[in-house]
Amino acid sequence: MAERVRVALIGAGRIGQRHATTLASAIPRAELAIVADVHGPSAETLANRVRCPHWTDNPRDVATDATVDAVVIASSTDSHAALITDAAQAGKQIFCEKPIALDLEATDRALDAVDQAGVRLQIGFQRRFDKAYHQAKELIDKGALGRIEAIRDTMRDPSPAPRAYLETSGGLYRDMTIHNFDCVRWMMGVEVTELFAMGSAIVAPVFQELDDIDTSVISLRFSNGSLGVIDNSRRSGFGYDVRTEVFGSEGALMIGYSRDTPMLRLDAAGVHSDHIYWFLERFDQAYIDELKVFIDCIIDNTQPPVDGKDARAAMTLAYAAEASRRENAPVSPSRFARG
Amino acid sequence: MAERVRVALIGAGRIGQRHATTLASAIPRAELAIVADVHGPSAETLANRVRCPHWTDNPRDVATDATVDAVVIASSTDSHAALITDAAQAGKQIFCEKPIALDLEATDRALDAVDQAGVRLQIGFQRRFDKAYHQAKELIDKGALGRIEAIRDTMRDPSPAPRAYLETSGGLYRDMTIHNFDCVRWMMGVEVTELFAMGSAIVAPVFQELDDIDTSVISLRFSNGSLGVIDNSRRSGFGYDVRTEVFGSEGALMIGYSRDTPMLRLDAAGVHSDHIYWFLERFDQAYIDELKVFIDCIIDNTQPPVDGKDARAAMTLAYAAEASRRENAPVSPSRFARG
Amino acid sequence: MAERVRVALIGAGRIGQRHATTLASAIPRAELAIVADVHGPSAETLANRVRCPHWTDNPRDVATDATVDAVVIASSTDSHAALITDAAQAGKQIFCEKPIALDLEATDRALDAVDQAGVRLQIGFQRRFDKAYHQAKELIDKGALGRIEAIRDTMRDPSPAPRAYLETSGGLYRDMTIHNFDCVRWMMGVEVTELFAMGSAIVAPVFQELDDIDTSVISLRFSNGSLGVIDNSRRSGFGYDVRTEVFGSEGALMIGYSRDTPMLRLDAAGVHSDHIYWFLERFDQAYIDELKVFIDCIIDNTQPPVDGKDARAAMTLAYAAEASRRENAPVSPSRFARG
Amino acid sequence: MAERVRVALIGAGRIGQRHATTLASAIPRAELAIVADVHGPSAETLANRVRCPHWTDNPRDVATDATVDAVVIASSTDSHAALITDAAQAGKQIFCEKPIALDLEATDRALDAVDQAGVRLQIGFQRRFDKAYHQAKELIDKGALGRIEAIRDTMRDPSPAPRAYLETSGGLYRDMTIHNFDCVRWMMGVEVTELFAMGSAIVAPVFQELDDIDTSVISLRFSNGSLGVIDNSRRSGFGYDVRTEVFGSEGALMIGYSRDTPMLRLDAAGVHSDHIYWFLERFDQAYIDELKVFIDCIIDNTQPPVDGKDARAAMTLAYAAEASRRENAPVSPSRFARG
Repeated sequence: MAERVRVALIGAGRIGQRHATTLASAIPRAELAIVADVHGPSAETLANRVRCPHWTDNPRDVATDATVDAVVIASSTDSHAALITDAAQAGKQIFCEKPIALDLEATDRALDAVDQAGVRLQIGFQRRFDKAYHQAKELIDKGALGRIEAIRDTMRDPSPAPRAYLETSGGLYRDMTIHNFDCVRWMMGVEVTELFAMGSAIVAPVFQELDDIDTSVISLRFSNGSLGVIDNSRRSGFGYDVRTEVFGSEGALMIGYSRDTPMLRLDAAGVHSDHIYWFLERFDQAYIDELKVFIDCIIDNTQPPVDGKDARAAMTLAYAAEASRRENAPVSPSRFARG
Repeated sequence: MAERVRVALIGAGRIGQRHATTLASAIPRAELAIVADVHGPSAETLANRVRCPHWTDNPRDVATDATVDAVVIASSTDSHAALITDAAQAGKQIFCEKPIALDLEATDRALDAVDQAGVRLQIGFQRRFDKAYHQAKELIDKGALGRIEAIRDTMRDPSPAPRAYLETSGGLYRDMTIHNFDCVRWMMGVEVTELFAMGSAIVAPVFQELDDIDTSVISLRFSNGSLGVIDNSRRSGFGYDVRTEVFGSEGALMIGYSRDTPMLRLDAAGVHSDHIYWFLERFDQAYIDELKVFIDCIIDNTQPPVDGKDARAAMTLAYAAEASRRENAPVSPSRFARG
Repeated sequence: MAERVRVALIGAGRIGQRHATTLASAIPRAELAIVADVHGPSAETLANRVRCPHWTDNPRDVATDATVDAVVIASSTDSHAALITDAAQAGKQIFCEKPIALDLEATDRALDAVDQAGVRLQIGFQRRFDKAYHQAKELIDKGALGRIEAIRDTMRDPSPAPRAYLETSGGLYRDMTIHNFDCVRWMMGVEVTELFAMGSAIVAPVFQELDDIDTSVISLRFSNGSLGVIDNSRRSGFGYDVRTEVFGSEGALMIGYSRDTPMLRLDAAGVHSDHIYWFLERFDQAYIDELKVFIDCIIDNTQPPVDGKDARAAMTLAYAAEASRRENAPVSPSRFARG
Repeated sequence: MAERVRVALIGAGRIGQRHATTLASAIPRAELAIVADVHGPSAETLANRVRCPHWTDNPRDVATDATVDAVVIASSTDSHAALITDAAQAGKQIFCEKPIALDLEATDRALDAVDQAGVRLQIGFQRRFDKAYHQAKELIDKGALGRIEAIRDTMRDPSPAPRAYLETSGGLYRDMTIHNFDCVRWMMGVEVTELFAMGSAIVAPVFQELDDIDTSVISLRFSNGSLGVIDNSRRSGFGYDVRTEVFGSEGALMIGYSRDTPMLRLDAAGVHSDHIYWFLERFDQAYIDELKVFIDCIIDNTQPPVDGKDARAAMTLAYAAEASRRENAPVSPSRFARG
């Protein structure tokens, strides 16, 4: 492996732009070699902006391009599995945004391709690279909280995504809650053995029209008897709300709530502060650090801290939540285990 | 009604002592006339401490004493229903700690006695008189949050109560979660139509031995489609943890986390503050204000803001939660509606 | 000394009313025997409200009344010195609001009378009895901050007092900053050897008209080389602002900022909380505790933790500050030491 | 002016490394052309790290290099004035770390050279580009606080710089407090007309040995009658402490205190959070934004928001503070006005 990893970026949308900046300027061991997007002008504009020398409107060519070492897949979800498969078969190292696919079958086929090729696959669960979450995990693992007994994980977007996005999103659990599913598995260090999901479509008419939900609470039982709850909303009314609380026999950790600036305004009406409004702000540094770790894994020949098995496990929980909600009964995720 | 209400206090335990101090010194319109406790020396000691002229070891006499206008019942739960019935039949105004009884049948019989006597019955759900909760309710009712969509209500004790207490407590849902059940009903302003309860006994062996639980999460669906979650623990590992979050279309309210003093300590290890450890500290003023309101209702001839119907409704939810947990299925509280 | 201390309260104004409630109901070892105020109807109203059996419009009679053990002086400042002298000569134990007098000569004469009579004199510097300040002092004294190097002490009223009050207040330093002077002496545990005071009258025209100031910063040097700063304003624009920061070689303590309730409101404009608006709220418990300590000192025959010498020392600093401001030069408080 | 500004960086130390990363990767309109440091290996290492094609050990050559448009001066203070003069005479746009020089004469000569050359000079007072300070200034300027009456500005380093640094630092006021002097001038929008400085050397023996101070409080009077206070320490005992409070007739702003992560840890000992330890963390984004603004000013032909006059004015206050401290008397900064 050369001193610097040559990376192809696939997808020039919101998160692709974020990764392009990181790869082009913030990781000395990486070199952004080419930007690909099925919409050529988007690829070209982004390549110019970050001074990347090449661009293309054919992502699948890029996945197999002999001059690149790794691919970062930030295109739309429905393209992930095929790109992973192509890239794996071409021997590329792979970073892919969640989820691998909206159905478990396609997920499993892509993971098989990765396994057979023996390449690395890192999934873009960025919370795992956030400084606060990272420190929390370390404290938990070294026993600072004693025996872990419960977790509360909440996530609310400031406002619903556009209808076009929602139509192909796979629904709340596979699109949004999947971050929480990964978070609770990671934090607790044990697997979910049963969950019960309750959902509602009350935020905006579009969710009912799409047979989707916008508000949800999910109860979770873990293999060691500890309990958890995940609650979500597609619209918070105040900003981006990501908070996690972990309770143990010796104390608790609470992650959140994030201010944008350390300024208070005081007047006769009270004390006022700001807050983080958007996930790209909240996880700004985590989006950089996850790619740094990916590049380091390639050069240093180590395993990514969050991989295809984690993506599959989180998707299994999303399947179980959807089944629980529709059946109005608790469901064991083992129902969706690989045969 | 005289200018001052003559009150008999029944029960000289922890919460009875709190109420005695309030009645003896903090409410000009009230006069503590007598303290009763089946354990005579406790009654005597408390009466002396607050300079109350009379005491007795026979609570049932007191409930019917012609010289008192009202009774405050803070004795053990198993005595509540009979005392309410006696006091009601004697025409006394009644303040009673939660719950009225551990079973719905006894609850209903006591409420019938109150109805037939036409006296007032206020229940000691002290959160309703806490300044923060009170302001939150006002903001919600005047629409400051827009349409309400979700509530998260958490409650953790610092450490488990003694085994003797737990043995007759009625279990987590009827003893502890009942505060949360009242809180979510009050805050949301609509009724719970379905709930699912998941419990675990992992905090201490005593809970398993008593066929009780110490950790729980409950999902709630309200009649207007909004959702909620209640989570409890018998031991937090850090102090008294009572927090409530209400989410609406226009924003959110978060009640908690309570510092004991406004002091920060900063050193090389970080920034350190204290926290409220015990419920009597957290709700110090609320315990005074609930009795003030009770006395005012008597003199001003108005209805208590939290009454027997509220106690019955909260107990119904506790029944439903217990049923859900044991059946491992969602349950409608209507199953326990009065025939 | 009898089991309970019979107390005469002099002064039925704002702070007198606060003390009356405390003495009548919150201190088992005290008994409020009589309320005195030169304005008879105020005394009568207050006595009735707290169920005190006697009242009078002649405070000086009360100070020498053979049936009382102690006096609590909360009348206007110009009456303090004479009442202290009378009460001391009659052998009463004395609690007096700050300051003893607006001039040092009268202060010294009153202190002489106390000394000669051998009675106790406690001064109403309530911060010393506040839980946060008390804990801070303990941490400092046990070395948790290492060597103390600096203190910042700030105090701002929500809005200026009425003109009538200001006319006889003695000016900013003797009326308001005197609390800060006591605080910094107490916290630092060493004396001020030099100070420089800068003042301005910009908040309201009344201050310029009275040759007073409404805004001030004072630099302080202590005998051990540590430094301090006190800043004051007669109007904060947002509430009652009392904060103290102490810096040492091993860390720092910050006291303040005080919320009224533990509730946050979040909306698209940000995060909003309330704050304490008035000193009677901020020091609510301290006003009770200072009288408890006073009564305990009498019964247990111990010395009050803040006495006439402390009052004199704080007034000396006020004199020095006024001199510094007028001379526009640093001043040593030793200039005003007792001859 | 070409589309991208070619920049020479002078100085490969701590802050130079920070600027190199920014210029190399975070500002699309800038191109880092060369790195210069009198210690050649430092220049070479830094150039390699940020992939800058050229380096040199001769900063003065760079200041006049025909192929660069602008210089960023981050070398040691004693070299600033000569480099500014050279660069100005060569027609370069100039960004220079504070201060321009430790004496006013050299400062004035450098500013004359800039004026005569008609080039831009921006000074590295990074607080002006911090989001919180920037928003505070906007709120103040649009009247959100009403009439401004007072400012409190504090700054404490985590621990003293090495002796070698201190020996040539120019002392506390010219090295550290100069940031506060710029901050209060900027925030208040009016000039200081009088100040009084009190200093002490108690943190470490080195300060006394160097006839320097490590702890200071400075009282300030502004031309409109408002007051201020600056307090500094060379060692906080807990981290980097930069806080500013501005008080007006309608309310106040408080900037600080900065957490490193949004995580709380709760246990039986209390609630624990972290804090920002170092200025490069606290002002991370401000160090990027100040260079962005500098590059924008060059391309868009506008004036830098903080220039040589501001640097001179802050240094004037440092001179006045030093004079006040040594004379133990208030001093007017006009004493050091340019002739």
